[in-house]
Amino acid sequence: MTDPHPPKRSAVILLSGGLDSATTLAIARSEGFLCHALTFDYGQRHRQELDAAKRVARHLGAASHVVERLDLRLFGGSALTADIAVPKDRDDFAMTHGIPITYVPARNLIFLSLAAAFAEVLRAQDLFIGVNAVDYSGYPDCRPEFIRSFERTARLATKAGVEGSPLRIHTPLMELPKPEIIRLGSALGVDFSLTHSCYDPDPAGRACGRCDSCLIRRNGFRDAGVADPTSRVP
Amino acid sequence: MTDPHPPKRSAVILLSGGLDSATTLAIARSEGFLCHALTFDYGQRHRQELDAAKRVARHLGAASHVVERLDLRLFGGSALTADIAVPKDRDDFAMTHGIPITYVPARNLIFLSLAAAFAEVLRAQDLFIGVNAVDYSGYPDCRPEFIRSFERTARLATKAGVEGSPLRIHTPLMELPKPEIIRLGSALGVDFSLTHSCYDPDPAGRACGRCDSCLIRRNGFRDAGVADPTSRVP
Repeated sequence: MTDPHPPKRSAVILLSGGLDSATTLAIARSEGFLCHALTFDYGQRHRQELDAAKRVARHLGAASHVVERLDLRLFGGSALTADIAVPKDRDDFAMTHGIPITYVPARNLIFLSLAAAFAEVLRAQDLFIGVNAVDYSGYPDCRPEFIRSFERTARLATKAGVEGSPLRIHTPLMELPKPEIIRLGSALGVDFSLTHSCYDPDPAGRACGRCDSCLIRRNGFRDAGVADPTSRVP
Repeated sequence: MTDPHPPKRSAVILLSGGLDSATTLAIARSEGFLCHALTFDYGQRHRQELDAAKRVARHLGAASHVVERLDLRLFGGSALTADIAVPKDRDDFAMTHGIPITYVPARNLIFLSLAAAFAEVLRAQDLFIGVNAVDYSGYPDCRPEFIRSFERTARLATKAGVEGSPLRIHTPLMELPKPEIIRLGSALGVDFSLTHSCYDPDPAGRACGRCDSCLIRRNGFRDAGVADPTSRVP
């Protein structure tokens, strides 16, 4: 007789506090995983997303939530980690061509590497990341070919990989346009008012409404036909 | 006419404070690179190596030295980052078979990822790491197949890689037995008395003389015929 209630398998979920990673956490839970959320306090300009990540982890029933600190401002090189202005009011063409100045060098490589370590210690073989190749086509570290290559590298790098328990990386949002992500998150019960997307919020935590991330989010809610709960600078 | 003094190319050197990474820094300098050293304060038990890294960076003329903090104790899972005893007095067979409990999950994957970010911001295309597949055959993330796979992944992950300036990873010690590393370092002027190898030093910073790292170091000096400057617990 098989166990009618087998123990849940653990998974690590990269959780930024934005709507993509919140939806990804909801998807992982809906697939039956015991979800361990991992967030990075890396010196980002938009620290408000750290509070959002804590709210989202609680809201969506993460089994644990680790906030790992590392200071990417020591390296700089991005509008998110150095004294470089966040671009505002860009048009669709500008937002979808070239690598934006908000690109943080090797960020997803760093985040996935730390997540692989966390997964290995938890004996989890599943790792979820909410990367998307549609809206952020400019970020090299959001593309499927990077994810697959990282998966191979992680198998070679770790004891778990060498001993036959390699890490699987799940990217459930990879091919979804933003409105579909929002509809899927809504259907899974994500409260988007808890999430934060803006790269350059005001001190009260309200979204600027003008950076790439704000524009993509605003258009996404509009096109999804879902009420937009975002608190923006008036 | 070619410039008789072309500007030096920059390289990032992973510097732990041990004798392998010190020798690697000396090699990179001897090859004419402007060397930017990168050290990790990751919650390691043997924090004395951080002071050693600072001494070595100065001694060997690094152009800059960044110490990046991240807390791998949040994950644990290793004798170096959790409350797990460091094995002592192991024999050669035990030291060369299996993955030791001093393995830190995904450590070199994490370190190389952060080094790739540092290199991208510096516009450096060269990265040196003192991994060695001879003495530490048990560590999966010291093998050449891991390094080559990481190199491919970093090219896909970064703006520099996408735009035609991919990172090259140099592993000049990969195939060298410890005595040869010590002879090479000596020939390049490395003062090994500044380096630290022990995983479990006493509060005064003296080496225990009994962990794997101490035993490999001691045997290395003996077999190299080089005076051993290590300060050990009597």
